[in-house]
Parts: sequence; C-alpha cells; structure tokens
Amino acid sequence: MKNLKGALMFGQSGGPTSVINASAAGVFLEALEQENITDIYGAEHGIRGILEEKFFDMRKEDKKELELLKNTPSSALGSVRYKLKDANVDDTDYKRLLEVFKKYNVRYFFYNGGNDSMDTCNKISKFMQKNGYEINVIGVPKTIDNDLFGTDHCPGYGSAARYVATSIMEVYQDMNVYDTGLITVIEAMGRNAGWITAAAGLANLKGYGPDLIYLPEQDFDVDEFINEVSEVAKKKNNKVMVVISEGIHDKNGKLIAEYLSSVNKDSFGHAQLGGTCAILANLLNQKLGVKVRPIEFSLLQRCGAHVGSGNDIKEAFEAGRMAVKYAVAGETDKMVIFERKNQKEYEIEYKLVDLSLAANTERKVPAEWILPNHKGLTQEFYDYALPLIQGNPNCVLEDNLPRFAKLKKVYAKK
Amino acid sequence: MKNLKGALMFGQSGGPTSVINASAAGVFLEALEQENITDIYGAEHGIRGILEEKFFDMRKEDKKELELLKNTPSSALGSVRYKLKDANVDDTDYKRLLEVFKKYNVRYFFYNGGNDSMDTCNKISKFMQKNGYEINVIGVPKTIDNDLFGTDHCPGYGSAARYVATSIMEVYQDMNVYDTGLITVIEAMGRNAGWITAAAGLANLKGYGPDLIYLPEQDFDVDEFINEVSEVAKKKNNKVMVVISEGIHDKNGKLIAEYLSSVNKDSFGHAQLGGTCAILANLLNQKLGVKVRPIEFSLLQRCGAHVGSGNDIKEAFEAGRMAVKYAVAGETDKMVIFERKNQKEYEIEYKLVDLSLAANTERKVPAEWILPNHKGLTQEFYDYALPLIQGNPNCVLEDNLPRFAKLKKVYAKK
Repeated sequence: MKNLKGALMFGQSGGPTSVINASAAGVFLEALEQENITDIYGAEHGIRGILEEKFFDMRKEDKKELELLKNTPSSALGSVRYKLKDANVDDTDYKRLLEVFKKYNVRYFFYNGGNDSMDTCNKISKFMQKNGYEINVIGVPKTIDNDLFGTDHCPGYGSAARYVATSIMEVYQDMNVYDTGLITVIEAMGRNAGWITAAAGLANLKGYGPDLIYLPEQDFDVDEFINEVSEVAKKKNNKVMVVISEGIHDKNGKLIAEYLSSVNKDSFGHAQLGGTCAILANLLNQKLGVKVRPIEFSLLQRCGAHVGSGNDIKEAFEAGRMAVKYAVAGETDKMVIFERKNQKEYEIEYKLVDLSLAANTERKVPAEWILPNHKGLTQEFYDYALPLIQGNPNCVLEDNLPRFAKLKKVYAKK
Repeated sequence: MKNLKGALMFGQSGGPTSVINASAAGVFLEALEQENITDIYGAEHGIRGILEEKFFDMRKEDKKELELLKNTPSSALGSVRYKLKDANVDDTDYKRLLEVFKKYNVRYFFYNGGNDSMDTCNKISKFMQKNGYEINVIGVPKTIDNDLFGTDHCPGYGSAARYVATSIMEVYQDMNVYDTGLITVIEAMGRNAGWITAAAGLANLKGYGPDLIYLPEQDFDVDEFINEVSEVAKKKNNKVMVVISEGIHDKNGKLIAEYLSSVNKDSFGHAQLGGTCAILANLLNQKLGVKVRPIEFSLLQRCGAHVGSGNDIKEAFEAGRMAVKYAVAGETDKMVIFERKNQKEYEIEYKLVDLSLAANTERKVPAEWILPNHKGLTQEFYDYALPLIQGNPNCVLEDNLPRFAKLKKVYAKK
C-alpha cells in the first residue's frame, strides 16, 4: 500500500465488449495527469505482450484518439486468453513478468477483464508481493456476462443489454408481419450467467418481447421446452418468440449445444458455444411442423457500440480512471467495483473489492427474479437493468459510419 | 388518367424493411390533406386484407402515431406474399377485388413492395382498366434488395446498407482482437442482386472491411472460394473476413445453400434461403484447419431501424407522399421512382415509370463495379452507395428503447 513512482502497464484480456476501450481511455487519460506515473504502456494482447516485451508507448498517442477509444468497440490493444499456471507448480511466466516489470520500472499494473482475467491479475499481484517487488495492482472489471462478484454490475453489460433489447424489439416487429406462423428462436451470449439473455425481457416492458426465456441458471429440459413453446403457439396463432442463452444445459450440466457434432474447448477449458438456436429450431420444426427461424446475435451483441449504453460507456471510463486514482493513492490487490446507491435516482459509487474475492466467483441472475415456466423476469430485474441501458453513446461519425480510434501503436523501446 | 374522388386503399407486401412504414406514413399523412380522398384504408396483410374485407380506417388513427411510423420497422399493417393468378386463367381474385373497390368506392390504390408486389399492382391495374372501373393505381417501391427496375435505388436499401456497413466495421474490430487465426464468414441478404452484400464494401472505405465479397451476380465456384480465402489467410496471419450473399449459386444456377438438407420454397417459387455461411464456414474449417465463425445478419439487417439511414427514411416517406400527389393529379398504372440529379450535391427527383416495366425486371450490381477475384467493389459503387446511407433516423425513445407507432387498427365498417 505504497505511494509509488514508476511506469504504468495496462492490458486487455478475454472476450471484447463495446466499452473495454472506454476503460482503456480512462486509464490512459488519467495516467497522463498523474505525476507519479512515468511511462505509460499498453500491452499488446494482454499478458502475452508483457511476456514478449511487446507493449505500446501510450504517451506517443494523440489525446484525441484516446478520447475516441470511448466509442471504439473491442480491444484496441489486442486481447488474449492466456491462463497462468499455479506459481507453485511452474513460476516461469511469473519470473519473466517480474523481470520485465523491473526492466521498465513498472510500478502500476492494471488488467481489464472478467473472471479469468481477475484470476490472472490476482496471481500476479500475489507473486510480486511474495517476491518483494513493490507494485500496485488493480483489476478493472469488464464482461458483457455481468457475472463478476462484488460489483452491482460490470462494464460492457449495459451496452450488450441495450443491443439485445433493441434488436429483440425490432425482430419482434419483423416476425409478426405475415399472417402465417413463425417461431423465432434467438440465441444470446452467457455461458453460466443469464444476464444478457435476461435483457431480452426488457423488450417486454414495451410490449414487443419474447414469450419464453431460457437462462443457464436453470436446467433445460427438451421435452418441457417443446411443451412450453407448443402451448404458446396454440394460443398465439403459431407466432412465438423464444430467447435462449448459449449456455443452457440439461440437469446433468451437459450443454444443449453438445448435441452438435463439434464442441471445441478454449484454453480455459470452456466449451466453445454457439449454434444452439439452430438445433432447437430444427427440433421445433420437426415436432410442431411450424416454420422456425433461428437468429444468433453472435459477435454483434458484444461489439454493437453504435447502440451502446451511455451510462455503460461513462462507467467503463470511470472504472479505468478510478483504478489509476486508487493505485496512485496506494491501493493494490483490488478490483474496482460499482456500488449502487440506495436511492430513487440511479447513481453509483466506485469502490474496491479484494482481487481474491473477484477472481473465479460467478454472480448469477437471482432465482427470485426469474418467473416460473420460463415466462421471463420479474419487476426486480427490470428495476435493476433499466438504468444500465440509459444514455446514448457519443459516436463520432465520418460518412455516417463509425470513426474508430486510430492508435499509432509505437512499441516501447527495449 | 382522371382526377377522381373516392376512397384510398393502401397495402404493404413482401418482406419488410426498416422504412416501409415511412412510406405508409407518407401515403396516409398526404391523403389526410387531399380533398378528393374520402375514406383512407390500410389493408391488413396486403391483398389478402382486401379480398377478405379486412382493412383499417386510418382516419381513426392519431396523427402523432402516424408520424412515429417513420421510425417503426417492418410492416405495421401486416404484409403478405400472395401471388395473383393470371387473370386470363382464373379471375376470381380480381373480380373480388373489383367488388370490394366498388363497395367502398375505392378510387386510389397504392401497393408498397418489391418486384412481385409491382407485378400484383400491375395486374390489378390492368384488370380494372379492362373492366372499365376508374381507379388510379400507383406502386410505391420498397425492397432492401435494391433491385427494382427504373429507379436509382429503392427505399429500404439505404438503411439495410448502413446496418450492414456499420455492423461489418464493428465485427472487424472484434474478430481482430486475438493473436490467433479467425476466419469470419458473414452472410447478407439478396437473392439475385448483390446490393446489400456489396454494402459491406463501404466498410473498406474506413479500413475495416471484408477481404473478399461474393455477390450473386457472379457464379460461385467452391474451389476458387477456398483458394481465394486460403491466399488471404496466408498473407494476413489467418485473419480473414469474407462476406457472401445468401443467393450465391454455382455456374448452373444451383444455390450453394442447396447443399443444405432442407430447402423450402415460398409461394412465388423462391427457395427459402439462409444458413449458407454455416456450411461454407464448416468447409473452410475442414480445408484450412483454421477457426471459422459464421455470422448471419438474418432479419436484423432489414429491421435495424435504430441504425437506419436518414436519407432513406425521408425518401421512403416522400415516395408515399408523391404517390398520392401523382394519383390525385390523375396519374395511374405507374410506380414512383427516384432519379438522381447529375450534380455534386446528392439530390433526387421523384418521377414515375410504367408499372409493367417495374414489375418482374431485376436490376443488378453492374459487372463493371465489381473488382476481379472477389476483391470488392469499385469507387463507382462507393460513389453510388455512400449518399444513400447518410443522415440519422429521428428515433423516439422511451426508457432508451424504441417507441414504435401504436396503431388502433380499427377495422373499416362493412
């Protein structure tokens, strides 16, 4: 917990979001204001960039372009999925990180990501402490999955939620246009937590939402699914909208997507998901004899910055900015969190939680917010989620197309 | 070509777009100003609604809600795919239409749709003429496919094009985030004309666009495709973005989608497309051993009104308004077209073309605008398409979600 002087290293990790670069902007623009921070480095592809001594000198960037990062989706520095081994088993990577940190006098380390990234951040922090290297380490939360522990919500979620709710409302208009039956099965992201899928329910507030919502918080039963869709189809002239999470699984935890021929695993051991809506659409078509259209929001839901949430962008930026402020004030081994003030007007405070708590603990949609028989979400969920999708992004346009940040990406001198 | 007094009937037909309701707003709001127009009817599900005497009394609607139609995607009155038989073979439907027109003294008929709908409109117009029933018939163009003959472009295209170009730019950011290879195969709509798919090329103007674009204007060769993707993959570290049209076909005209097990046909005899990107993605993965992600824009590209083109909305509205003005002035048997003025600043004039010319003639992307080896489009295409995606929609939001028009839909008294 020291007030250190030295270089700053920032890395982006895990799946990108619409606002992960807003946090980067927060970190870099705040760092430029801090006297204790000497060099400012942006790691190319997260941890891998540090290990390979590939990081950018962010002082070489135009401030205007750093501002544009707020509305540039995905990870401008490059992201990575890199799982550090247990330091007690193999400390090669840790030693290398320490070597690089020493060489460049890195005294501030910020890692921007979800559960796995906070685990990485935590492991690095603990190793540096154990080896007596003074460095303040702060995790900057990020995940459209909204499943990080200890925070009211996660940067990235609000924008994904607004994308999903808006698109659901538009698709609802489209699917109801003919006088013939059509069942639409829409797949949203979320492996173990159904927050993104639940956001589809926001469309119901406006009267244009899904009839049925299937979250990974509950076991998925194929027969029950067919019965429930069939019941709605009978009542509504075969016009049914169903939204499922990519992570729906049977009672034994087996993913519905595993019925597909190829399920690969990424380096964290997670199954690579997607395509579940297509098999369920086929199944419904066979069982009910109605035209069924599968729609997968795919990458669009996590990079659709043009319909992002203004609050989300602001908060993601502040999360980065506050991480720097806290670190410079001597905080370390923590992750920035959002605490919602208990008042009528939505407002949050930026606080800290221990990295060890944030790492690898998943926060799911509370069971009491889920209506029975997959009928959607309760008012409590709407009250929770609605403020998160407010505000519009200030996208800069050129030819009426997005003007994304153009970074020079000058490697730091070795 | 008479100046008639009587009721107006308007119908929406074919696949919806982001702006078909803007044309409806143009028709209805202009009709309210015209002394020669008595009742104003909106047919439920197009021709079918007229045949079944199911149409709404549009004078009962709030003007404010009619205004909101401008930013409400899809067909608010309900659409239909209904193919009229040749009147010489079976004139049952035509006689019924005449009966309904007489009963309600319908003297103005407007049909809003694409090629097939203009064919319907033309057939009705000719039958009424032949049977001496005085009615002014004007087609209002609409199709994201942009393939109607005689017009510079079609309402609906600009919004779909902006959706596609914007989303492509965002996905480009996302797919380039990791240091591992990823080939993305994106599928856009367009059966026989590649205009929507070509719009993906606009993203290249900004430096974030597809490496390869496959339009239905050219025969698709699977081996050539694999070779071309493979060549880009070698040069670009396995990071490739490919955009294909749903309508790509082999040299015998057989759809690539037909490799899929089930290909259904709609009532016009068109194959129901979709899913082509998934089979091509599988194929590339097998042949090149690189991770491939298929993304289908599906319905989103034709209902994504939140990122629609302001010019498109304005022109769609004007197309409806001008149809009424022309009809009241005595024009009939025509379709409204857009003529681009040959000047530096983009501007169009609203003119007319014979319905018989507009019906069933498809306008495709000119061969000279397509670069060799599927490398994209020429500057001529960009010069053509860029003005069409300009301007922002004035979406009314509630809770930061779209506030779509809410019509009362009161059936006209029988």
